[in-house]
Amino acid sequence: MPFTVVKEIPGSESRLGRLVTRHGVVETPAFVAVATRGTVRALSSEDLESLGVQILIANTYHLFLRPGPEAIAEHGGLHRFTGWHGPWMTDSGGFQVFSLGAGKLHGVGKIASIFPGEAKPNPAGLSLVELTEEGAWIRSIFDGAKYLFSPEEVIRIERLLGADVILPLDECTSPFHDLVYTKQAMERTHRWAERALVAFERTQGLGPNPEQELWGIVQGGAYEELRRRSARTIAGLGFPGFAIGGSLGKSKEEMHRVVEWAVEELPRDKPRHLLGIGTLEDIVEAVRRGVDLFDCAAPTRLARNGSLLTFSAPGFRLNIDNARFRRDENPVDENCDCPCCRRYTRAFLHHLLRTGELSYFRLATLHNVRFMVRFMAWIRAELAAGRLPTLEPKLS
Amino acid sequence: MPFTVVKEIPGSESRLGRLVTRHGVVETPAFVAVATRGTVRALSSEDLESLGVQILIANTYHLFLRPGPEAIAEHGGLHRFTGWHGPWMTDSGGFQVFSLGAGKLHGVGKIASIFPGEAKPNPAGLSLVELTEEGAWIRSIFDGAKYLFSPEEVIRIERLLGADVILPLDECTSPFHDLVYTKQAMERTHRWAERALVAFERTQGLGPNPEQELWGIVQGGAYEELRRRSARTIAGLGFPGFAIGGSLGKSKEEMHRVVEWAVEELPRDKPRHLLGIGTLEDIVEAVRRGVDLFDCAAPTRLARNGSLLTFSAPGFRLNIDNARFRRDENPVDENCDCPCCRRYTRAFLHHLLRTGELSYFRLATLHNVRFMVRFMAWIRAELAAGRLPTLEPKLS
Repeated sequence: MPFTVVKEIPGSESRLGRLVTRHGVVETPAFVAVATRGTVRALSSEDLESLGVQILIANTYHLFLRPGPEAIAEHGGLHRFTGWHGPWMTDSGGFQVFSLGAGKLHGVGKIASIFPGEAKPNPAGLSLVELTEEGAWIRSIFDGAKYLFSPEEVIRIERLLGADVILPLDECTSPFHDLVYTKQAMERTHRWAERALVAFERTQGLGPNPEQELWGIVQGGAYEELRRRSARTIAGLGFPGFAIGGSLGKSKEEMHRVVEWAVEELPRDKPRHLLGIGTLEDIVEAVRRGVDLFDCAAPTRLARNGSLLTFSAPGFRLNIDNARFRRDENPVDENCDCPCCRRYTRAFLHHLLRTGELSYFRLATLHNVRFMVRFMAWIRAELAAGRLPTLEPKLS
Repeated sequence: MPFTVVKEIPGSESRLGRLVTRHGVVETPAFVAVATRGTVRALSSEDLESLGVQILIANTYHLFLRPGPEAIAEHGGLHRFTGWHGPWMTDSGGFQVFSLGAGKLHGVGKIASIFPGEAKPNPAGLSLVELTEEGAWIRSIFDGAKYLFSPEEVIRIERLLGADVILPLDECTSPFHDLVYTKQAMERTHRWAERALVAFERTQGLGPNPEQELWGIVQGGAYEELRRRSARTIAGLGFPGFAIGGSLGKSKEEMHRVVEWAVEELPRDKPRHLLGIGTLEDIVEAVRRGVDLFDCAAPTRLARNGSLLTFSAPGFRLNIDNARFRRDENPVDENCDCPCCRRYTRAFLHHLLRTGELSYFRLATLHNVRFMVRFMAWIRAELAAGRLPTLEPKLS
């Protein structure tokens, strides 16, 4: 059994788990670091190891464009190509189908509350995607060339990349898609899931990693009936793990309900990944509702923008660009054991950011990624002690 | 004695040496890594330690503008501020007086051969510098504010920064300055050197580092009579070490002669630093002529631009951006022990550079800096074996 539930918290879906892959073990709940093009931005594989990162997720669409799956396969797959020898996931490119298509047209992300209020159609928004039953025609952001991302083609690419956990092509809907469209998209995603499973079986032996797992993706937007139906349908196809994707509604409360609906319909003995979600609050709430894995680009992107994660600052973020840090000789977080906090002061980081020094990006990213690793370890410790994690004491 | 000649090569000015500072020992000949704003671009202090870097040089002008010498002094000086606890040098801002002034107007660098032929006055060139006997009025590149860089002010700033070796304000001349102007500038530099020495004595006790050394700078352009006179004059002022600055002529041959003239007039028992020079060929030729220390931004800048140093490529540079590396599974240099070559392939670096990933800059810089460290160690080994280094066998 690649996934084991180690301990359950009575009265909840929450649990401690272990995911065993050919390239290493992932203790869950876990944060999956985002390495879109095969590298966590500004970090090396040695950095990730020293920070205690357990697993990375790369992007099928981006790696398809550059350097191409054949180049990576010839190189022995993602693990050998990138030098990260631990577990890898690849997402399917489905989110790019969304972000380059409906997301661009609607001007929204996974949760509409990022842009509160009504849909804000982007007048300059040009969809780079055309969706058909066959698959998604995607135009390259580099040269405008058109490629068909069919469920079969995506599996072929992911076989060549060789990640340990791979995801099938899905269609993410926007929070502003109505019930009718969301249902149609969901049903097509289910048909694509079946085709992906067939393609996955048929390509056994292709690519560098003979022990890949294909997990299913639950869609259905923020419509309870659709979400539950999608979870039941995808679970019924026999995937060994699941991801919850697509629109999570228009508020945090809706997102929590979407997670609850999906988790309730999924088998308890299989891992559950919440795609693209990762604020501290969101992670805690989703863990309490039974999610095991999270990936999110926010911690690394925030670092590059000057936001450093710490429990000691309001909103858990310290904006190192602020002039008040110019002469601050404290580390970013005195409770942190990362290479940045062990050696450098807020004043120095402020200076590096203000002068645009490249070393800033790495030091800040080291801190935020280490923070996420420690945060997930704290969550696991709470669960191990039989408690559901809560941010309340951290807020005081 | 802070500097010791460990071994001389008979029949030459070339030697092995040891420079002892409060913050560590520098085995010479040595490469001084350029950390303009207090950080070697894209690297951390841990990186520099693990690469075997012995000493860094920061820029007084840039640190004066940001974050300001008082902020650094309050923070305990450059060593504590930057987290690099080994030896530091600071240059004086004299080169910025040149590069923002005459260098900008003449469109040249330290050696005119970078732009072969005649002077290329830059019509759009606006001097940001006004030179007077009192000092150099420099406009900030940030807000246009004017500051007087006098010899005394520069010493005050460098006292506050607290580097182990500091340099006095000088005026660099351009290869296109005539004998008359070069002589006037040299004589003013000599007067500034005397004022700097007085200011240095007067400020004993100011700043975080009680054991700073002020070295003299030899000017005089590529005019033999001036170079020799400048070296004799500066040597006569009793500095404990020397830097060779300013115009090195219009060709490599002229540069070699300029170095020879200066070295012949300098005391044998004091260290000699050649400012801003650093191709492999230039370093070997200057070591053969008795130079002990080099600083140059080229190895780190080349790395960022895709040029990776190796003896196995023509011109000692491999351009990793070249499409032929797309599927090359070799390390950049199979003889290199740097963190980049130990783990990553040319194909992966090519991919990181092509996709603009931040991790590229660090991996490439790690390689080039480690190359320079190993290169200098090789030079020292040759000298220890009683041989003058030569690149000839490396070229075959």
